[in-house]
Amino acid sequence: MMPSRKSLLVAAVVALSASLLAHGAYAQSPAPTKADALIKLRQSAFNVVGWHCSRIKTNVEGQYNKEEVVKSANAIASIVNGDLFPQFAAGTEQGKGWHDTAFKAEGLDSKRFAELAGNLRADSSELARLASSSADVASVKTQFTKVAQSCRSCHDDFRRKD
Amino acid sequence: MMPSRKSLLVAAVVALSASLLAHGAYAQSPAPTKADALIKLRQSAFNVVGWHCSRIKTNVEGQYNKEEVVKSANAIASIVNGDLFPQFAAGTEQGKGWHDTAFKAEGLDSKRFAELAGNLRADSSELARLASSSADVASVKTQFTKVAQSCRSCHDDFRRKD
Repeated sequence: MMPSRKSLLVAAVVALSASLLAHGAYAQSPAPTKADALIKLRQSAFNVVGWHCSRIKTNVEGQYNKEEVVKSANAIASIVNGDLFPQFAAGTEQGKGWHDTAFKAEGLDSKRFAELAGNLRADSSELARLASSSADVASVKTQFTKVAQSCRSCHDDFRRKD
Repeated sequence: MMPSRKSLLVAAVVALSASLLAHGAYAQSPAPTKADALIKLRQSAFNVVGWHCSRIKTNVEGQYNKEEVVKSANAIASIVNGDLFPQFAAGTEQGKGWHDTAFKAEGLDSKRFAELAGNLRADSSELARLASSSADVASVKTQFTKVAQSCRSCHDDFRRKD
């Protein structure tokens, strides 16, 4: 389910408030624009998700620590199911967040994006379920590969290569 | 439970790998140091947590949307329970992440930090539990205030004011 126009607007305003709060200590910096705040938010979410993916990869390829995998799978699932996607709202195709956005400037194919976002949400939720419930590391590894492929599919379509 | 030295080291290496992956598209930038990557990670996590806190605040002070509050409470709980705290490892008291760290340069009182981190983990987990299980908005609001106080206590002790 893609968010409504209203929820996109609410999310944008909330994100801007969060960014202003987060930057309260940096009054000397230029005030962020709404797009800046949204781009920072999605870059932040990807940074945290990336760290947890790397930790799961280390675990499934090496010595498996179930507690670490459960924590990281829960973090990924809750972040990608936590309405991250409004942060790709119109107006954020180009801009400076923490760094220049790598979002492809030609913008968003909403239907394809919704499909890929849905895959990532479903794959991540299933990974969190398996990590907690299964003693079978191979099945966790297989599901983690699906999550990584979901990430890659979206990068292929929507992230600049250069 | 505070992480062991070994898990701190593993987390640092994993975080560095994640950052290198995340920045693969920016080969022209100087290679990040280990401290840079750790500081970016914690700043990212706080950015995402801040957004979710703002969304819960909007909900408990206005029109309450249970689905949004559950999603945000789950995201906060899984991020703060996901071994964020190694990102305050020695060597990251000063440095540049996405922006100059606001971490107090005099460093970490480990005992006090562990106490505050434990409070935040417990308060956030309880908020996620209440948000899902309770129809009583007032109890969710009270518990959210506790989470916000946990954040503030740590900022008071460990974040620069300027």
